[in-house]
Amino acid sequence: MKALVYRGPGKPSWEEKPAPTIQEPTDAIVKIAWTTICGTDLHILKGDVATVTDGRTLGHEGVGVVEEAGPGVSSFRKGDRVLISCITSCGKCDACKKGMYSHCEKGGWILGNTIDGTQAEKVRIPYADTSLYRIPAGADEGAIVMLSDILPTGFECGVLNGQVKPGDTVAIVGAGPIGLAALLTAQFYAPARIILIDTDDNRLAVSMKLGATDVVNNSDGKAVEKVLALTGQKGVDVAIEAVGVPATFDVCQDIVAAGGHVANVGVHGKSVTLKLEKLWSHNVTVTTRLVDTVTTPMLLRTVTSGKVLPRQLITHEFRLDEILKAYETFGQAAKAKALKVLVRNE
Amino acid sequence: MKALVYRGPGKPSWEEKPAPTIQEPTDAIVKIAWTTICGTDLHILKGDVATVTDGRTLGHEGVGVVEEAGPGVSSFRKGDRVLISCITSCGKCDACKKGMYSHCEKGGWILGNTIDGTQAEKVRIPYADTSLYRIPAGADEGAIVMLSDILPTGFECGVLNGQVKPGDTVAIVGAGPIGLAALLTAQFYAPARIILIDTDDNRLAVSMKLGATDVVNNSDGKAVEKVLALTGQKGVDVAIEAVGVPATFDVCQDIVAAGGHVANVGVHGKSVTLKLEKLWSHNVTVTTRLVDTVTTPMLLRTVTSGKVLPRQLITHEFRLDEILKAYETFGQAAKAKALKVLVRNE
Amino acid sequence: MKALVYRGPGKPSWEEKPAPTIQEPTDAIVKIAWTTICGTDLHILKGDVATVTDGRTLGHEGVGVVEEAGPGVSSFRKGDRVLISCITSCGKCDACKKGMYSHCEKGGWILGNTIDGTQAEKVRIPYADTSLYRIPAGADEGAIVMLSDILPTGFECGVLNGQVKPGDTVAIVGAGPIGLAALLTAQFYAPARIILIDTDDNRLAVSMKLGATDVVNNSDGKAVEKVLALTGQKGVDVAIEAVGVPATFDVCQDIVAAGGHVANVGVHGKSVTLKLEKLWSHNVTVTTRLVDTVTTPMLLRTVTSGKVLPRQLITHEFRLDEILKAYETFGQAAKAKALKVLVRNE
Amino acid sequence: MKALVYRGPGKPSWEEKPAPTIQEPTDAIVKIAWTTICGTDLHILKGDVATVTDGRTLGHEGVGVVEEAGPGVSSFRKGDRVLISCITSCGKCDACKKGMYSHCEKGGWILGNTIDGTQAEKVRIPYADTSLYRIPAGADEGAIVMLSDILPTGFECGVLNGQVKPGDTVAIVGAGPIGLAALLTAQFYAPARIILIDTDDNRLAVSMKLGATDVVNNSDGKAVEKVLALTGQKGVDVAIEAVGVPATFDVCQDIVAAGGHVANVGVHGKSVTLKLEKLWSHNVTVTTRLVDTVTTPMLLRTVTSGKVLPRQLITHEFRLDEILKAYETFGQAAKAKALKVLVRNE
Repeated sequence: MKALVYRGPGKPSWEEKPAPTIQEPTDAIVKIAWTTICGTDLHILKGDVATVTDGRTLGHEGVGVVEEAGPGVSSFRKGDRVLISCITSCGKCDACKKGMYSHCEKGGWILGNTIDGTQAEKVRIPYADTSLYRIPAGADEGAIVMLSDILPTGFECGVLNGQVKPGDTVAIVGAGPIGLAALLTAQFYAPARIILIDTDDNRLAVSMKLGATDVVNNSDGKAVEKVLALTGQKGVDVAIEAVGVPATFDVCQDIVAAGGHVANVGVHGKSVTLKLEKLWSHNVTVTTRLVDTVTTPMLLRTVTSGKVLPRQLITHEFRLDEILKAYETFGQAAKAKALKVLVRNE
Repeated sequence: MKALVYRGPGKPSWEEKPAPTIQEPTDAIVKIAWTTICGTDLHILKGDVATVTDGRTLGHEGVGVVEEAGPGVSSFRKGDRVLISCITSCGKCDACKKGMYSHCEKGGWILGNTIDGTQAEKVRIPYADTSLYRIPAGADEGAIVMLSDILPTGFECGVLNGQVKPGDTVAIVGAGPIGLAALLTAQFYAPARIILIDTDDNRLAVSMKLGATDVVNNSDGKAVEKVLALTGQKGVDVAIEAVGVPATFDVCQDIVAAGGHVANVGVHGKSVTLKLEKLWSHNVTVTTRLVDTVTTPMLLRTVTSGKVLPRQLITHEFRLDEILKAYETFGQAAKAKALKVLVRNE
Repeated sequence: MKALVYRGPGKPSWEEKPAPTIQEPTDAIVKIAWTTICGTDLHILKGDVATVTDGRTLGHEGVGVVEEAGPGVSSFRKGDRVLISCITSCGKCDACKKGMYSHCEKGGWILGNTIDGTQAEKVRIPYADTSLYRIPAGADEGAIVMLSDILPTGFECGVLNGQVKPGDTVAIVGAGPIGLAALLTAQFYAPARIILIDTDDNRLAVSMKLGATDVVNNSDGKAVEKVLALTGQKGVDVAIEAVGVPATFDVCQDIVAAGGHVANVGVHGKSVTLKLEKLWSHNVTVTTRLVDTVTTPMLLRTVTSGKVLPRQLITHEFRLDEILKAYETFGQAAKAKALKVLVRNE
Repeated sequence: MKALVYRGPGKPSWEEKPAPTIQEPTDAIVKIAWTTICGTDLHILKGDVATVTDGRTLGHEGVGVVEEAGPGVSSFRKGDRVLISCITSCGKCDACKKGMYSHCEKGGWILGNTIDGTQAEKVRIPYADTSLYRIPAGADEGAIVMLSDILPTGFECGVLNGQVKPGDTVAIVGAGPIGLAALLTAQFYAPARIILIDTDDNRLAVSMKLGATDVVNNSDGKAVEKVLALTGQKGVDVAIEAVGVPATFDVCQDIVAAGGHVANVGVHGKSVTLKLEKLWSHNVTVTTRLVDTVTTPMLLRTVTSGKVLPRQLITHEFRLDEILKAYETFGQAAKAKALKVLVRNE
């Protein structure tokens, strides 16, 4: 079969490789119908993710059809159309029993990382019973791909950890796909205001369409004072960090009100400075989280009932055999005005 | 001044009586701008509420302007436009410190009950600092009257106690003003489905306009089987009782799914039968609550930001000197297609 | 092998039957080291539990050693010493993912009910990975049998559902094994007072040894007024029902304070009257629950660290081949001053 | 009257000054029976707290008797014996209504800071109704002084914010009075292990007496590896920072397990480095808090019922006119083996 393979920093390769096979009784083989590219895939291609080695098929998002289910799989069988979670969960270990699938002893984020991923014609999914989800009848399957990673990430790490409540003022720093996923799902809780902060006017314009009440362009580095001005100098109840660099974390800790929450979503490569000399007495909560995808069933219900429209995050569509072109587009997102690029194989 | 006075069962009287005066340092005198009539007022007029005695001015809802504030009032002064909470809270007792204002040792529901109420030109408000709320600039004041009682009641007793979550299936039994207030505020949490149950087709039609996804007319007494059919025999995550009779409580306990919530909002005059022989093993939670109005600040923010439009609950408007006519209309709500009747004095 | 078999109402039989074998890849066969008898087993023997049919091996509690693990079992292997949960959990269905194992689509309470149970030399455990727990090294294994059912039942249905908090006043109605398990585990949360209510002086004396601060003998039917007197007429924050008849549920609803919790643990055969005409405005929460055993890992840690000593609940010990005698003793608990009777097979 | 007055850095002065008088209707004048010295008082005397100016009476802890209550005070009158909270709460502002008294618009930590404090024969308490607590009959009043600040601080900022649960492993960094208050109150929740970390062997020995299960002397800077060794390299569920310097915060972030909590209690003068490059994916929660004293009623019940014995924190006792000697002893705590020094005036 064909797959998008990592061949070292800067070298994505669209190449032939053997199709995956069942290795454990709890495995399933899924034929990919739809996949997409994540910001993390770009990091991998830069060589930033040490666990990814030469020859690895990338990708941890997708929708497909079960081609074969191992003898230990009881919930799915050949022909079932399924959503693939970016997080593999054994369902048995202490972490899984607590709902912290991201720290599953045998799973976690392994797809397209320590085992071959979804940017291929087929993929092997370990612990299929607890790592796949049935697609609801009549669903917009392309849009459902957004539930592999981005929607639960924005929701769990940003909105749930940030404890967004009705009437709250929420700020989201970073209007990329993850920040916008947080924007969409924050609206589940009827906050009074959602302020999006970015340096790209196009993304801020998209934010307004997707439900932001205010936007702040931080090209001048004055996001903090602008947000304080917007909030009568009180700051925000919830600040969601969706970029992953010290400067954006700083914005968050500088705009959070007493009693508020800073919910980190971004993948950080460096330490940040936490201003405890000010914050020790401010009754704030700072959270971090690798998405657990424990809310996937809930999110599927909100998508099915139209409470959230994840297709709004998709700007481009490619065929699987054009995936290198999809990478190129996604790699220059600002110029291409790209958010999520959908890749289809059906 | 003029006031609507209880003169015994069936005898509301619009009559002259002395204007209220400051009695305690923490009192304020509020000139009524808007008031409304509650289902409870009808119960009082039937003679069902023993604490209400001859000569009492009725009414526990209203918006007005502070005419005089006692020396112990620090948050409000003459001229402030204020929302009057139906619950009086001293802010100091154990119950108030827990946020259970309904059980305030010196307050609770006293307006139009044990002290004179708001259906008058003026009203005395004890513990004004913790029982009044400033009206946000530019607010639709008539609509804000819905925050005196009905909106916090539907929200606190129904939605919050029922723990409505994104993706949930919610049933509300009773599409009167309180049930509809629950319907409006349940939408803060993005449930996938909200099923309204009533016997009045007009109210069910209104429910659909206000956000219900399904309606069930229970005139044939088959609400339980209809709801089970709608939910694939699973039942609902949350059943909100907004009527107050054994039959509607029964519907709730018969449609709630394992792990679900029955949130009682209705005022009950009789005991109900709780089917523990079935429910003991169903992991259900049944809650009761007299509204605390502890969420009033939150609700004011959701109204100001347009997340909820309480004016949708208002069907009629009268001048204060027409209040007997307002009672008549509200008393035959089905025939008059009446929900809340707004009464103005400005 | 030998087993205690149900042969119709009033007919327990200690008889030879074929040893269980692996039927599904996720099964394990466990050789019983310790088991015990539950009040539910007595109900079964009275013919009260329709799902139990002639020929069924009884028992849903036990500690043993894995004799054989099916090919789909990954967490346990031959020779592992394990605690058997009274609740079988597949770990994959919606209910299991929510932590509501009691309503597992394929499991729940099936041992000694719809499949053969633990009062035998060997037992087949379905979904072994998620229905067994490793025994910590050095544990008092006889005492650990209390974690199959009774300790999680008292804790989850009574203490957790009742939301016991530091400084609370808690009442437990029923000082049998389940009520005492609630008493032991309520102390995890440092309530100020725990009042035990029963009609048996011996059990009340035991309660005082196990941590009750007050006891009330309800032989005169005056428990309600006594508890109100003990609490300055305020009532209790948490009332735990651990009997399962209308009269004891009544005590609970009559002693719960405004804002309080009634946590039902008892197995009820009849409906009860819920006094909504009083309670509708009392801000109370009534919960029901079939134990989920989702807290078993937590409870194992509290036992290992000596925070709770479940052996205190054991009054008698028998060999497995004396189990009919054990039933006799347990069946006349008051006369025999019996709480839990431990049955050993090693 | 006599008072301990701040006369600039390094200059505490025991001097005569006018007795306080009622300034607002909501004030009370309290005659001090007992007071104590806080680590913060030492910081003030070093000149580290800019809000404290020359002439200020120090002290924010105490028990006393109401000498005069203003006309707006309704809960207390002359002769009532009261606990003084270190946090003054108006009970009316947004922060107070949320239970975040530390950020009361007109109160917060003002005693011995921006207004005269409790280390004097008398003190004026603003908003007496919501800033004083009645002493339970028969209480050990000296011990109750520990509830002015230290016990709620350890409990709210450390234990509650850290979400200590039954069976947890908790580490407390710093075995001074605040760390020990966290140790005492953590036991409300039956954690399996509590590891105390300090560099003073005496304090670690005291910790063992007060309920620690393990102690780690960090004089060699190897606390992290020792704690990891004690926990099988998993780390702790809750790490409580009770010192206030970057090195101890570092220990906390290095020992917290995935899914765990870092609860900061210490007063920090400098920023710390938050290792987001590791923690972003570890699902951790970091909290800060200035004590709200919102749990004081709960803590009073736990003290009255003997669930916690705060007298264990008191090592020395002085008369009020010996307070300079008390400061000297407390200032060289390690040498004097001092924890809390009680100062009496009755």
